[in-house]
Amino acid sequence: MTEDFLHRIRHKGLRERVVSAEQAASLIHDGMVLGMSGFTRAGEAKAVPMALAERARQNPMKVTLMTGASLGNDLDKTMAEAQLLSRRIPFMSDPALRRAINAGEVMYIDQHLSETVEQLRTCQLPPVDIAIIEAVAITEQGGILPTTSVGNSASFALLAEKVIVEINLSQSEQLEGLHDIYIPTYRPTRTPIPVVSAESRVGFPFIPVPPERIAAIVISTKLDSSSTVQEPDEETRAIAGHLTDFLKNEVAHSRLPSHLQPLQAGIGTIANAVLHGFIDSPFHDLTMYSEVLQDSTFDLMDAGKMVFASGSSITLSAPKYAEVMARFQDYKPKLILRPQEISNHPEVVRRLGLICINTALEFDIYGNVNSTHVMGTNMMNGIGGSGDFARNAFLSVFVTKSLAKGGRISSVVPMVSHVDHTEHDVDILVTEQGLADLRGLAPRERARVIIRNCVAPEWRPALEDYLGRALVRGGHTPHLLEEALSWHDRLRRTGSMRPE
Amino acid sequence: MTEDFLHRIRHKGLRERVVSAEQAASLIHDGMVLGMSGFTRAGEAKAVPMALAERARQNPMKVTLMTGASLGNDLDKTMAEAQLLSRRIPFMSDPALRRAINAGEVMYIDQHLSETVEQLRTCQLPPVDIAIIEAVAITEQGGILPTTSVGNSASFALLAEKVIVEINLSQSEQLEGLHDIYIPTYRPTRTPIPVVSAESRVGFPFIPVPPERIAAIVISTKLDSSSTVQEPDEETRAIAGHLTDFLKNEVAHSRLPSHLQPLQAGIGTIANAVLHGFIDSPFHDLTMYSEVLQDSTFDLMDAGKMVFASGSSITLSAPKYAEVMARFQDYKPKLILRPQEISNHPEVVRRLGLICINTALEFDIYGNVNSTHVMGTNMMNGIGGSGDFARNAFLSVFVTKSLAKGGRISSVVPMVSHVDHTEHDVDILVTEQGLADLRGLAPRERARVIIRNCVAPEWRPALEDYLGRALVRGGHTPHLLEEALSWHDRLRRTGSMRPE
Repeated sequence: MTEDFLHRIRHKGLRERVVSAEQAASLIHDGMVLGMSGFTRAGEAKAVPMALAERARQNPMKVTLMTGASLGNDLDKTMAEAQLLSRRIPFMSDPALRRAINAGEVMYIDQHLSETVEQLRTCQLPPVDIAIIEAVAITEQGGILPTTSVGNSASFALLAEKVIVEINLSQSEQLEGLHDIYIPTYRPTRTPIPVVSAESRVGFPFIPVPPERIAAIVISTKLDSSSTVQEPDEETRAIAGHLTDFLKNEVAHSRLPSHLQPLQAGIGTIANAVLHGFIDSPFHDLTMYSEVLQDSTFDLMDAGKMVFASGSSITLSAPKYAEVMARFQDYKPKLILRPQEISNHPEVVRRLGLICINTALEFDIYGNVNSTHVMGTNMMNGIGGSGDFARNAFLSVFVTKSLAKGGRISSVVPMVSHVDHTEHDVDILVTEQGLADLRGLAPRERARVIIRNCVAPEWRPALEDYLGRALVRGGHTPHLLEEALSWHDRLRRTGSMRPE
Repeated sequence: MTEDFLHRIRHKGLRERVVSAEQAASLIHDGMVLGMSGFTRAGEAKAVPMALAERARQNPMKVTLMTGASLGNDLDKTMAEAQLLSRRIPFMSDPALRRAINAGEVMYIDQHLSETVEQLRTCQLPPVDIAIIEAVAITEQGGILPTTSVGNSASFALLAEKVIVEINLSQSEQLEGLHDIYIPTYRPTRTPIPVVSAESRVGFPFIPVPPERIAAIVISTKLDSSSTVQEPDEETRAIAGHLTDFLKNEVAHSRLPSHLQPLQAGIGTIANAVLHGFIDSPFHDLTMYSEVLQDSTFDLMDAGKMVFASGSSITLSAPKYAEVMARFQDYKPKLILRPQEISNHPEVVRRLGLICINTALEFDIYGNVNSTHVMGTNMMNGIGGSGDFARNAFLSVFVTKSLAKGGRISSVVPMVSHVDHTEHDVDILVTEQGLADLRGLAPRERARVIIRNCVAPEWRPALEDYLGRALVRGGHTPHLLEEALSWHDRLRRTGSMRPE
């Protein structure tokens, strides 16, 4: 490695702290709590966790790992396989780690993404021993310039005993100035968070850490992993179409302006497809106040539809990444990356009046949503930011395809096997079949609209039959408790929800 | 009736609008949407709804009724029995109305109490035709001075086509100056809500309605109904003791100051008993930022323990009401009543860092809470403000007795039959058996702590057995779906959760 990284450590006194990833990892001891950068495969520390996993394979050790959200470069997999993790907070999406969590080998604390650092700050979670933060550079004063995500990095760095900085030479120095680091003030004198629009800049462009707390600096060069979002297909295009039509109608009835209200979209293929759908819509001057800025954000900017986007990370496909970085100076004035506490903060979400589009694993005939648990027991990913957004949204939209596993599973069920979002927090449900507008409806009314509009035709009679028999028994939310979860139980036993 | 009410209508031009309750009710037509004052039996309009119910008994008609929360003076009962209500929003607690809701005769929209006026303002609920607001007086400018509650009155009055004011001569004029009416500004230029402590006064002391919109004024004299809160018993005292001990320990570990953080307590006997428990605690200089100020608030002030209380209503027992009104000038500097949108606002709840104590109907071994549905189907009261508070609390506490119906029901079950609060929003569970601190625990860990600390001894083996068998099957949240709701089904069939 040449020394051409030195200009990225502008605080000259810190240059002597450059060590190898292995040396930095040796600061970490068995039982420690680590706070690591990284949010949906963007901006995670890469070299030190890899070195630590390698060490754990030789000499077994366990740590509690907190991050922003999921990690790229198979780091969750590598650490899980090295049996390094005793506890993982607050989000993950790796199959190997998921397996370990569902086997009870790793204790996973699934949290609303805005809440982790709040709980850390008030000592309701164990304190972070070491923060490991990927950076573009360190400023003259020792401030850390994050890379493609902010996540929980700022609070981890500020609260940790020691900080390890990974300067990633593959992350462009153009990223400097993109970030807006604001930390809520301490109670009892906490003041309002001054964000009043997606464009509001209210904090520092770097994480202001006292330089003496930076214990080690590691140089890395590995790129972020590309996003795994798939192209829109016929069904996701239909979902986008239903939602666009609905929003057009809201505009026509003056319930929304033609630039809508700031958009939030969850991670993944369906939400990305829905945003893509806006390219051919009549809406314009759109803004985004979200967690993850995906390909669709930049496609909307390219199409002249979106004027500003605020998020906590940029997670792109490989071709889009190349395209965006090639003319990043054009995009930069239209972008802000914030701590996830702020991108997801109930206060700001409610103030701005977001239109929130998140993905459901399944929902039930009354509009309760399961975002996390397969068959009510096995963790898929975690609730992520969906709770932060859905509860406080102007419009809380959940999307899913009506069928899964080649039609063996109906995504609309009598009763969800796990509740992440209650009917109180769900305004609009959309599948490729259609859209259910649940605003102002009682449960019995919701059930009729959901079954009529969202369910695949082959499952409709069974749900109508269930509802009909439940209505005979009565109640505000009529159910047949002895049968409510039988579809899931059948799926568990036979691999299909279809009657045996 | 003498004319000694005239000084309560300070805007002289409005004095000619005084009419009888029947005349005022004649402004209301079949199919209208009414927005009425009233929050937990306090400050509801009394004469006009009674006259309207009488009329509906003669000539059937239907209206949509929105209020702050539940009504006193058996108004919900009277209106339900007169078959006047087609739709009821957002809270109720009357047995007759409950029966009509569970029979599907009244469509009940159960909402987070901070959200109703937000949805009204943005035209996501049908517009209010007529607001009916109880008042102490009307100011010189035509402003409405509310009585013992604010609830949704301010927004109803501001948004309605016409306003009927009920001046209640039994409500003391001393109440003037108690209220702080702040309405969030319109989007997209909405600014932060400036409340930074329980004591913050940020609005008007009256509801600023243009006098020409006041269509009728009715004089009434009926008192608020007294609260139905029962005296603490051995079990509620035990719950209070466990929670006090827990908070003492938090103070001892410097996670809380000795004045704690502002308290919120739900409506009802258990929450009231818990607050009473603080009288003999070492905590001092307590403040409250809650919905309903009950007897316990004033008892804590009398004991020199509480220095300030902010709420949306004052709902007292008959003796306490007499006592408080007799020396109201002493209490007034320590009290504010706010719109429920502000008393329950996620922004303020999170900013102030509330300790929130709400009542569960039942909870499950993983910490999900059911606040509303008996056997997953029949509505009890509605979610009220518990969701506004629990999601954004510094500490979210749910309390319940471990047994109901003479031990035939365990309040701790394998899986709740309805979810109002997910495990993500529940930090602490307390029964008379003990307290479960769930912070930072994964579901498998939560289950062990809950079963050990909160379950009645006679139900513990059955829950341990369930958990043990579910763990064999595995998962992040292990369940036996074919059995998860069997306790409730048995209760439905046999009147007891006990094995047949």
